Amino acid sequence: MPDIDGNRLLRDLYAARAIGTYKTGVHRPTYSADDMTARHWLADRLTEAGLTAEIDGIGNVIGRSAAPGPKLLLGSHMETQPHAGWLDGAMGVIYGLEVARALLPHFGNAIEVGAWADEEGHFGNFLGSRSFVRGLDDAEIAATVNRHDGTPLPTALAQAGLAGRPRARLDPARYRGYLEAHIEQGDELDTSGLRLGIVTSIVGIWQFMIRFDGVQNHAGTTRMAIRKDAGVALVRLAGAIEARFPQVAGPRSVWTTGRIRLEPGAPSIVPGGAEMLFQFRDADPARLAAMEQALEALVAEANAGPCTVTLTNLSRWTPKLMDPGFQDALERAAQARAPGMHIRMPSGAGHDAQIFADRLPAAMLFVPSIGGISHHYAEDTKDADLVLGCQVLADAAAAILGG
Amino acid sequence: MPDIDGNRLLRDLYAARAIGTYKTGVHRPTYSADDMTARHWLADRLTEAGLTAEIDGIGNVIGRSAAPGPKLLLGSHMETQPHAGWLDGAMGVIYGLEVARALLPHFGNAIEVGAWADEEGHFGNFLGSRSFVRGLDDAEIAATVNRHDGTPLPTALAQAGLAGRPRARLDPARYRGYLEAHIEQGDELDTSGLRLGIVTSIVGIWQFMIRFDGVQNHAGTTRMAIRKDAGVALVRLAGAIEARFPQVAGPRSVWTTGRIRLEPGAPSIVPGGAEMLFQFRDADPARLAAMEQALEALVAEANAGPCTVTLTNLSRWTPKLMDPGFQDALERAAQARAPGMHIRMPSGAGHDAQIFADRLPAAMLFVPSIGGISHHYAEDTKDADLVLGCQVLADAAAAILGG
Repeated sequence: MPDIDGNRLLRDLYAARAIGTYKTGVHRPTYSADDMTARHWLADRLTEAGLTAEIDGIGNVIGRSAAPGPKLLLGSHMETQPHAGWLDGAMGVIYGLEVARALLPHFGNAIEVGAWADEEGHFGNFLGSRSFVRGLDDAEIAATVNRHDGTPLPTALAQAGLAGRPRARLDPARYRGYLEAHIEQGDELDTSGLRLGIVTSIVGIWQFMIRFDGVQNHAGTTRMAIRKDAGVALVRLAGAIEARFPQVAGPRSVWTTGRIRLEPGAPSIVPGGAEMLFQFRDADPARLAAMEQALEALVAEANAGPCTVTLTNLSRWTPKLMDPGFQDALERAAQARAPGMHIRMPSGAGHDAQIFADRLPAAMLFVPSIGGISHHYAEDTKDADLVLGCQVLADAAAAILGG
Repeated sequence: MPDIDGNRLLRDLYAARAIGTYKTGVHRPTYSADDMTARHWLADRLTEAGLTAEIDGIGNVIGRSAAPGPKLLLGSHMETQPHAGWLDGAMGVIYGLEVARALLPHFGNAIEVGAWADEEGHFGNFLGSRSFVRGLDDAEIAATVNRHDGTPLPTALAQAGLAGRPRARLDPARYRGYLEAHIEQGDELDTSGLRLGIVTSIVGIWQFMIRFDGVQNHAGTTRMAIRKDAGVALVRLAGAIEARFPQVAGPRSVWTTGRIRLEPGAPSIVPGGAEMLFQFRDADPARLAAMEQALEALVAEANAGPCTVTLTNLSRWTPKLMDPGFQDALERAAQARAPGMHIRMPSGAGHDAQIFADRLPAAMLFVPSIGGISHHYAEDTKDADLVLGCQVLADAAAAILGG
C-alpha cells in the first residue's frame, strides 16, 4: 500500500489556511481576492506534483495527467462560507493532491484532482461541479448574482480574471470514478469516538417557502376577535410542524426553519403578511415524501384559520446513493488502518459528489469534526485524524485503480 | 349653541388631503417637505381665524389668542404614518380650527389650537406634545434619529427650517383644559352603527424585547436531538403566549408580536439567535401587571428549554383617565345632536391627549373609521360623521367655556 507523507499533507493544509485567515478559520468567499490566490496556489502545487493544472472559465481548478491508463478523479472545493472553517472543502482538495503524489511511484499519474467552484453557494448551487459534469448555459451565468451583495456573476468572473476562459467538461470514459473526502460537519464521529465515516448516501434536501396572508391593522385599536394576524398564523403552523414532524421523521431526518419575516415588522402593527423558509432532509426518498405529505396536511389545517397559507416548493434535491464497490474499498482501507474505528453513515450536507454521482461511480469519506462544529471559524479536526483520513483515501484509491 | 360651518370644515379637510396625496390617502412623514407645507398651510388658516400662529423649534404649530378670559386648547397632529390615511391627526387639528371660528362670535377668541409634531413617532414618542407639556432636553434631541433612514433629528429640524427656533411651553394656568378629536381607528363604532365615541381613558402600552440565544449550526449535519435552535424556542414561547394570554386578558386587552428575526436567517443554518418584539395594551393598570406576570412566568418556563430566553421591558406607558367633567360635557353634546348614537369607550391607541392629561383636564372624542381601517391609505369616515363630530366638539367646548 502507498504511504502518504503526513507532514507534507499538514504543511499544505496549513499553507492553504494562511490564505484569507480569519481568527482560527478562513474567510474565502468565491472569486474574492483570497479565493483566487488559493486557486492559483493550488494550481502551482498540482503542477509541482506532475499534473497539468488549469483554472477554467467558472473557476474550477483541475489537475490533469498525460499518462495513459485508468484514472480516478479526487476533489472538493477551495472557497469557504463567510468567516468559516479551514477544512470545509480545502481538506478534500489537498487530500487529492497528496494522494496523487503518494500514488505516483506505484501507478504513475493516475490521480486527477479538481477544486469545484462555489460549492458553498455564494452565487449558485454547485456552480463548478454542475458546469463540469452537466454544463452550465450562458443564460444561467448571466442571471446569477452574489447572494450577499448582488454582484452579477459575469462581473465577478471578470474581476477574478476568468472572463473568456472556456469551461472544462467531464469525459466520463476517462475515469473509474470520483472520490471526495470531507469533514463530517456533524458530531456523530466525534461523540462516538470513531475516526472515519464511509458515506452511504447524500441526503435529499427539500426546501419550501410558506407564506401567510392576513390583514394588516393597528395593534391598539383592532380587537383580538377580528384580527387576521399573519404572524400568529405562522407561529401556529411552525409550532404544529415541531409537534408533528417527530412522528413522521426517521432517526436521521432533520428539519429547519431558517428564516421568519413579518410584514411590515413594526411593533404597533398587526402583521398582514408573514413568510418562513422551511426545509427538511433525509436519505430515504419515501421518508421525504412522507414529510412533505405531513407538511401539506398541516398547511391545509392552517388554511382553516383566519389567514391564507400558501406552500411553495423551492427545490427538491434527491438523495444520491454512493457507489457500493467504492464504499467497500473505503471500508476495507479503514478497517486495515483503524480497525473498528469506522462507521457507514449518510451525509446530511450536500457535496459536489452528489453532482458527480449522476455520471460516475462516486463515494465519500468523512473525518471527525471536533464538537461537530462547522461553518464557524472554530471548525477543527485532530492532526492524527487528518493524516489517517488521507491515508485511508490513498489506500482505497490504490485498491480501485489496482482492482 | 354655536353652529359650525360643515362645508368650510370639509373644504379645509380636503385642502390638507391635497398636500402629500398618496392614492386616496396621504404620505406626510414628520419634517418632510409635504409635512412642512402642511404646517405652514395650517399656520395661514389659524392666522385667518384671528389667532397668532407660530411654528416652534420642534415643529409644533400653535395658534394663540390675545383675547382675555378663559381658554380651551384643541389639537392633534398633522404628520401621517407612511402611505397612510388623510384623517389620522389632521382631522383633530382642523376641528380645532373650525371650532375656533365657530365660537368666535360667542366667546371671542377663546379657542387655541395646536398641531403637535411627530405624534406618529417617525423620530420619537410624542416629541411635540412632550416638548410643549414637559420640555425636551437638547441631549434627547441630539440622540434621536429617524427610525426609517437614520437621519439625526437636529439635521431634520435644520432641513425643515426650524434650527434655532425656541420650543414653546405650556402654561397650564392659561387653559380650562385640552380637547382632542380623532378617528377611532378601530371598528367598534362602525360595526355597532354608532357615530360618536366619548373616550374614557387611553390604554397603557407595555413593550418588550424577548431574545433567544442557542447555538448556530449546520442544518444538515446537526441532529435534532442536540440542537439549540433559537427559532424553535421563539416559536414555542410565541405559541405559549397565544395559548395563555386569553386567560389573563380583559375583554379589551390586545397583544401583538410585531417583529420576529432569526439569526443569521439563512435557509440551511440552525438559528443561533432570535428576537421578537411583543406588546400588550389595556386601560386597567392591574390587568397590565397581570399580563406582565403571565409573560414572566412563560419566559421562566421557556428558560427550562435548551436556549436562554431574556425578557427586556422597552417601555411602560401607563393608562391615562380622561377628565370626568369633560366626558360628561361631550356626552351631553352628543346626546343633543345624535341621541342614542354615542358610547363611552377606551382608546386602544396612544394620543397626544395622554401627554396633556398629566397637566390639564383632558378628553377625547372619536368619530367612526369605516371598516375600522387606519394606518392605510383606505382610511375614511363619512362626511356626515365628520361634520357631526366637529359640531359636538364645538358644543362641548362652548359648554366648558360657558360653565
